[in-house]
Amino acid sequence: MKKHNFYAGPSIIPDEVKEVTAKGILDLNGIGLSVMEVSHRSKEFSAIIEETALLIRELMAVPASHSVVFTHGGASLNFCMVPYNMLQKKAAYLDTGSWSSKAIKEARLFGEVEVVASSKDKNYTYIPRDFTIPADADYFHITTNNTIFGTEIREDIDSPVPLIADASSDILSRPVDVSRYGMIYAGAQKNVGPAGVAVAIIKNDILGKVDRPIPTMLDYRTYIDKASLFNTPACVSLYGCLNMLKWLKNLGGVEAIYKKNLEKAGILYEEIDRNKLFKSTIPDEKDRSIMNVTFVMTDEYKEKEAAFLEYAASKGMVGVKGHRSVGGFRASIYNAMPIESVKALIHTMKEFEATL
Amino acid sequence: MKKHNFYAGPSIIPDEVKEVTAKGILDLNGIGLSVMEVSHRSKEFSAIIEETALLIRELMAVPASHSVVFTHGGASLNFCMVPYNMLQKKAAYLDTGSWSSKAIKEARLFGEVEVVASSKDKNYTYIPRDFTIPADADYFHITTNNTIFGTEIREDIDSPVPLIADASSDILSRPVDVSRYGMIYAGAQKNVGPAGVAVAIIKNDILGKVDRPIPTMLDYRTYIDKASLFNTPACVSLYGCLNMLKWLKNLGGVEAIYKKNLEKAGILYEEIDRNKLFKSTIPDEKDRSIMNVTFVMTDEYKEKEAAFLEYAASKGMVGVKGHRSVGGFRASIYNAMPIESVKALIHTMKEFEATL
Repeated sequence: MKKHNFYAGPSIIPDEVKEVTAKGILDLNGIGLSVMEVSHRSKEFSAIIEETALLIRELMAVPASHSVVFTHGGASLNFCMVPYNMLQKKAAYLDTGSWSSKAIKEARLFGEVEVVASSKDKNYTYIPRDFTIPADADYFHITTNNTIFGTEIREDIDSPVPLIADASSDILSRPVDVSRYGMIYAGAQKNVGPAGVAVAIIKNDILGKVDRPIPTMLDYRTYIDKASLFNTPACVSLYGCLNMLKWLKNLGGVEAIYKKNLEKAGILYEEIDRNKLFKSTIPDEKDRSIMNVTFVMTDEYKEKEAAFLEYAASKGMVGVKGHRSVGGFRASIYNAMPIESVKALIHTMKEFEATL
Repeated sequence: MKKHNFYAGPSIIPDEVKEVTAKGILDLNGIGLSVMEVSHRSKEFSAIIEETALLIRELMAVPASHSVVFTHGGASLNFCMVPYNMLQKKAAYLDTGSWSSKAIKEARLFGEVEVVASSKDKNYTYIPRDFTIPADADYFHITTNNTIFGTEIREDIDSPVPLIADASSDILSRPVDVSRYGMIYAGAQKNVGPAGVAVAIIKNDILGKVDRPIPTMLDYRTYIDKASLFNTPACVSLYGCLNMLKWLKNLGGVEAIYKKNLEKAGILYEEIDRNKLFKSTIPDEKDRSIMNVTFVMTDEYKEKEAAFLEYAASKGMVGVKGHRSVGGFRASIYNAMPIESVKALIHTMKEFEATL
């Protein structure tokens, strides 16, 4: 049975990316060695990491003012690297969910943190819009997409201080004006490729302004100075990212995928709003994520949640269970998710409705 | 032409490990999803990470007093994590090469560092043995195998304070009494599997003794408490590690591979000592690494180095060039290196000798 992969991350990878990556695991470009066993200093691997960074640059139109590097430990390690490198006195954070909260927790180890607004009062079901970013903050940190709660900030916020965005679950899903950000970072495992690396796009001039000594591996300048090769990166993950980025480029790039993403999210939210069994967890349409669609059963059908999950599983739907902080369901429909799978989910929802 | 992979890391992976890993990249155990796209919280991936840790435990006979975890960023990130977690006042380090020096550099950011001995005076061509470990140090740090310089500490050192070993390039190559170590850590990319994870074996009671706040992702307790799943690990790398550890177990485990390693290193050093063109860079036999065999041309044939490298390349030898800090040649003959490839290198050395 065909599986429809709605996992929140690690998440769906296109078939052709799997095929090329598996080939490289056996023999990289016919050199007689696996991508797992070539030195990270070899010309073969240098070509991989350089092209991966160049593709990020090209696909996101990264200006010359910004560096593109690959760090370790996913977005979570960046939660402490950001304040380590940039919080001298005070940082401002917007709290829109679990990931923002985790980032805030790490920042507090390094200095004063001003949370400019939080949607915790309503279990993070909306994006706060009424807030002031303090002009004396070293930076302003946001989480653009909230994987768990299903909200997304889809505009480039105006900020008087460097804007730093954790874009782990919506990077490359829609056009972004990188020049307006001090930094954008993202764990790879949604739209960039397999888990194991994080992408960081950093405006060079925001670094070097804190007094504290920074351990080498936590200092963004190390990654910039050594082109992400100070130490051995997760080579296979990077190769997977390269293949995924090539796939995206062949498909027409970020503008093209954004259209597809809007269409996929559009038909799914439409069904959620129409179907008598389901309702969105995000009341305001403009706050709804186009990557992670969270929904629950209406009060009337609440006791049918487990039955729907079982029914969906029987139709090949994987990873549809919502995060425990929200309950219900979550369909993660990242770049690689074909509209056919979204239609299959919608069909399943309609079928299940008809049984009741 | 068959390639003989002597890279220092990432390094040779057995063919059957490549094949199983490539299969999992296409479809993990027939579940219809790639190992790149299953959630790290799925039962499929939980099984992978649990079995990988259990195999480390079994192969190294790790006692119940120690935890086995997988960290990010290779050994290099552990260079700062070790002092972050354990250096309260003073730490003792043995300086046996570039990796020791890098570890020392990071430790100095956190407190006093006493370097008990260094072989830098002779370009790290020997292992210092005449030193005293201060009893008031929080720990004593060693690098068991010096990948660049070709030396190795093959005995378990007596230490009055917790002994912490960076065993990146000789973990699993020989029996070690883990109970005598406070911690053993290693980047995966030599004997454990593909790059992207580091193994850390930590005696639980050496943690929690420093005053400083530790960022969550740098705190070893996070990895222990969450069974290495606080955040998304490098899933594909871990799957490669699992396959590599299974291969090692099937082969008879660490005792069995140690015999093979001694034999491989034995015949190669014998040829280096015999062949009029070459000499070992490590005078004292007991200091010679059985993982990284470094050698140069004798003064008489010095100008033939480039010619030998070219000749070796023409015979399918890859990665034989020595590190720039040593020059000459380096044959990295990790666990996965078959004796046939070592014999092929020896044959190449003999053939080249015959041309002169």
